[in-house]
Amino acid sequence: MSERTKVVVIGGGFGGLSAAQHLHSNLVDLTVIDRRNYHLFQPLLYQVATGSLSPGEIASPLRSVLSRQKNTRVWLGTVVDVDPDLKQVILADGTIVAYDSLIIAAGSETSYFGHNDWQQWAPGLKSIEEATTIRHKILYAFEVAERIPDLEQRRAWLTFVIVGAGPTGVELSGAIAEIARQTLKNDFRSINPKEAQIILMDGAPRVLRPFPEYLSEKANRSLTNLGVQVRCGVMVKHMNEEGLTIESDKGADSIAAKTVIWAGGITASPLGRILASRTNAETDKAGRVKVKPDLTIPNYPDIYVIGDLASATDEKGRPLPGLAQVAMQGGQYAATAILQKVKGQQELPPFHYFDKGTLAVIGRAAAVADVFGAHLSGFIAWLVWFFIHLMYLVTFQSRVLVFIQWAIQDLTFSRGARLITGTATTDFNFTKELADAHAAREIKPEPLNVPR
Amino acid sequence: MSERTKVVVIGGGFGGLSAAQHLHSNLVDLTVIDRRNYHLFQPLLYQVATGSLSPGEIASPLRSVLSRQKNTRVWLGTVVDVDPDLKQVILADGTIVAYDSLIIAAGSETSYFGHNDWQQWAPGLKSIEEATTIRHKILYAFEVAERIPDLEQRRAWLTFVIVGAGPTGVELSGAIAEIARQTLKNDFRSINPKEAQIILMDGAPRVLRPFPEYLSEKANRSLTNLGVQVRCGVMVKHMNEEGLTIESDKGADSIAAKTVIWAGGITASPLGRILASRTNAETDKAGRVKVKPDLTIPNYPDIYVIGDLASATDEKGRPLPGLAQVAMQGGQYAATAILQKVKGQQELPPFHYFDKGTLAVIGRAAAVADVFGAHLSGFIAWLVWFFIHLMYLVTFQSRVLVFIQWAIQDLTFSRGARLITGTATTDFNFTKELADAHAAREIKPEPLNVPR
Repeated sequence: MSERTKVVVIGGGFGGLSAAQHLHSNLVDLTVIDRRNYHLFQPLLYQVATGSLSPGEIASPLRSVLSRQKNTRVWLGTVVDVDPDLKQVILADGTIVAYDSLIIAAGSETSYFGHNDWQQWAPGLKSIEEATTIRHKILYAFEVAERIPDLEQRRAWLTFVIVGAGPTGVELSGAIAEIARQTLKNDFRSINPKEAQIILMDGAPRVLRPFPEYLSEKANRSLTNLGVQVRCGVMVKHMNEEGLTIESDKGADSIAAKTVIWAGGITASPLGRILASRTNAETDKAGRVKVKPDLTIPNYPDIYVIGDLASATDEKGRPLPGLAQVAMQGGQYAATAILQKVKGQQELPPFHYFDKGTLAVIGRAAAVADVFGAHLSGFIAWLVWFFIHLMYLVTFQSRVLVFIQWAIQDLTFSRGARLITGTATTDFNFTKELADAHAAREIKPEPLNVPR
Repeated sequence: MSERTKVVVIGGGFGGLSAAQHLHSNLVDLTVIDRRNYHLFQPLLYQVATGSLSPGEIASPLRSVLSRQKNTRVWLGTVVDVDPDLKQVILADGTIVAYDSLIIAAGSETSYFGHNDWQQWAPGLKSIEEATTIRHKILYAFEVAERIPDLEQRRAWLTFVIVGAGPTGVELSGAIAEIARQTLKNDFRSINPKEAQIILMDGAPRVLRPFPEYLSEKANRSLTNLGVQVRCGVMVKHMNEEGLTIESDKGADSIAAKTVIWAGGITASPLGRILASRTNAETDKAGRVKVKPDLTIPNYPDIYVIGDLASATDEKGRPLPGLAQVAMQGGQYAATAILQKVKGQQELPPFHYFDKGTLAVIGRAAAVADVFGAHLSGFIAWLVWFFIHLMYLVTFQSRVLVFIQWAIQDLTFSRGARLITGTATTDFNFTKELADAHAAREIKPEPLNVPR
C-alpha cells in the first residue's frame, strides 16, 4: 500500500505539464488526466493551420514526455466534476480518482461571445482538429476559386477574414498572405493567388493590444507590407455562409468571404464554473476561477487552479495574462508548494509571475518582441522568437531535425503539409456555385498561355 | 485559341502523376483531375498508421509537384462518368471536360469481399484518413487497457489482428509489434505493452505470397522473432465489435480483439465498371478494365487505362501485379504514346513491364527483397528498401531532412506522431466496459511501484 501523497493534475497543457514535471518525487503518487493523449505546443498551431507544420511536429504524447517519472501515471479521460469535500475527481466514464492535493489546469476554449452559431463558419484555433479544419478551408478556397468562372464568386472564395488581431490573428493573417503571395505563386492557371484579399479585423483600436503601442505600429506596418488589410475598431455583427457584416464608427459594411477564421477570444474551460459551484469560489466574466495569492481557492488549500483557468493578479492587483509563461510558472509554483507541505517545510511566499516578455511573429523572418523590457522588431525579433521556440520544442520532442527543416521551410516559403484531409474532401461538389454563376454545363478551361 | 491536343489524366497516384510528368510538352494542353489535392506515397502509409510519420511527410500537393509544367492545370474534382463518343469527362459537380486523349488512372480501393459491414470494425489502409483512424485505434487501445481493471477485457484491448499477409499486413504487424515492445516500453503503469498479442492472418498458405517461398519463410521467421503470431490458411467468417471468428482446417476459432485492421484485398475504382459500360470493354472479377497490349481499350485508341485500374498482361499472358512500378511505367508509356501520335511519329511497340523487383519491410531495419532476381533479406534488404524510398520521396518532396529524421527515428524506435486525433477522442467514454467489468464506481489506481 502506498502512503504517498496522492496528487492529481487535470490537464496536460503548459500549466499541467509544468506542474507534473516539478512533481517528480518519490514522496508523491501523481496522476495526470487529460482528454488528449498529447501535450500541444499551441503557439505554433497557426503553422499547422497554414500548412507549414504537421500536427505531429508540435505535439508530444504526454505519456512519453512523462515516461521516465516512475511516480507518475497518465490517464486519458474527461473530468466532469470535482468533489472538494470527499477529495475526488470524477471522470465522464464514471471513474473516481481520489486526491490529497489537486491542481486544475483545464485551460480555455474559443469564445464567440454569445454567437456560438458563428462557429460553423468561423472555426477557432485551439485544437489540432481546428487547425486542420482551417488548413482545409484555406486550401480548398483556392481550389474552388481556380474552377469558378464567375468573377464575383471567385472573389468571395479568395477573401480571407481573420477576426481578432491578437498574436494568433496577426500570425495567421501574415501566414495566409505569404501562402497567397509566395507559396502558391506558380501553382494555379485560372487565378492569381496574389489577388487574394486578407483582412485582419479587431474591435480594439490597434493590433496586438497587449504590446506597447510602438510595437503595434511596427506590426501593423509589416502586415500591410505583406498585403494584409488591417481594420481596427470594427465589430462583427452577423455572419453566414456568404460572409459577414461589420460595424465601425464609419457605419455598417458587408464583406463577401468564404473563409472566416475566429481568433476573437477565449473563455475558461467549463470546469471552472463547476468547481466554483462546488466550492463557492468566484469566477470572473470569462469563467475563470478567482484564486488567492498562493493560487489555491478560498477554504480549499489543497486545490490549486493555474493557467488560463485561473483569474490571478500580480502584487499590484493587475490581472495576469493568459500566456504559456504564466501557466508554466503557476504549475511550478503549485508543485513546489505541494512538495513543501508534504515535506513539512514552511509555506512558500505568494506566487510571483516573472514576465520574460511577449512575442508575435508576422510572416517570414519578421516579428515583434517585448522581451525583458526591450522592444525588438524585424529579423532580430524573429531570431529571438525562433530560439525560444526551438529550445522549448527540443526539450519536449528531441526532434531537432524537424525544427531545422521547419526553419528552412519558413525561410524558403515552401510548405510541406498542404493537405486537404477529412471527410469533406471526398464530397467535393460545387454544383450550387456553378449554378449560381449561370455557368454553362460545359466549363471550358481557358487555354493555357504557353509559348509554342 | 489553343489548338493543342487536349489530354486529361484522371488520378494523381503513381500512374497518373507519372503520365502527367511525361506529358510536359507545349504540344499538349494537360488537365489532371483528382479527388485529393495531393499525391500520396502509399507504400509508407503504414508508417502514418503506426505513428512514425505525419501525413504531410508522405504526401505532396499535386499542384506544387506539377507547378513548373506550364502546360498543365490541376483540378480538384471527382470524375463520375466518361462519354467516350463525345470525348468528355463528367465531374460530380456537373463540370464537363473535353479531351482528345484520356488516361484513366483511378486506382483501387479496399475490398471486403462482400462483407462491407466489416469496414466499421476493421478499417483498410488506402487513405490518410484511414491511416489516422488506424493510428487512433491502436493508441487508444493501449490507453483503454491501461484503465480497464478486468483482465479479460484488458486482453481484448491488447489484441491486434491484421487480416491479410501481403506487404501491407506484414509491414503493419511488424510495426505494431515494435510499438508494443519498444516504443511504449516505459510509458504505462498498469499494463505491460509487451503483453500485447499481434496476430497476422491470411487465407493463403504463407505470408507474402507474391514473393519467392524462400523469402516468405525469412519474413515469417522475422515476424515471429518480433512477437507476431502468424496464422496462415485461415479465413475470417464473422466480425463484430468484440472480435472475429475464423475458420481453418483445424476448425473454427474466435478471437476477442478490439483492434482489427483489414489488409485483406483491393478492388478497382468504380470508374472501371462505368467505363466498361460505356465502351463495352471487359472487366475482370476485381473490376479492373481489360486493356490491349498498348494499354488502350478495344475500339477506343484514345483511352488509356493504367495502374491498379487496368487488367494488363505481359508478353507471356501473365497478369501484371498492382504495384507502383507497373503504374508508373504504364503512365510513362501512355504519355509517350500520346506524344508520338501528336507528333505524327510511328506507334510504340506494346507496353513492356520491366520488373525491378519487390520489397517488404519487417519492422526495424529488416526487410525481404526480390530485386533484379536477387533474393535479399535482413539489413541489406532494408538498406535497398530505404534507398529506393529515399530517392522517390526526395524527388517529389525535396524534403531530405524529414527523411533523415525518419530514418533516425526508425532506427531508434521513437515515434514522433503518436497522436490520437479526430472527433472520437473528445467523447472518451468507456462506461460500458467498466460496467461490463463489474467495476466498483471507484477505480483505485494500483499503487505505483517506486522505491521510496
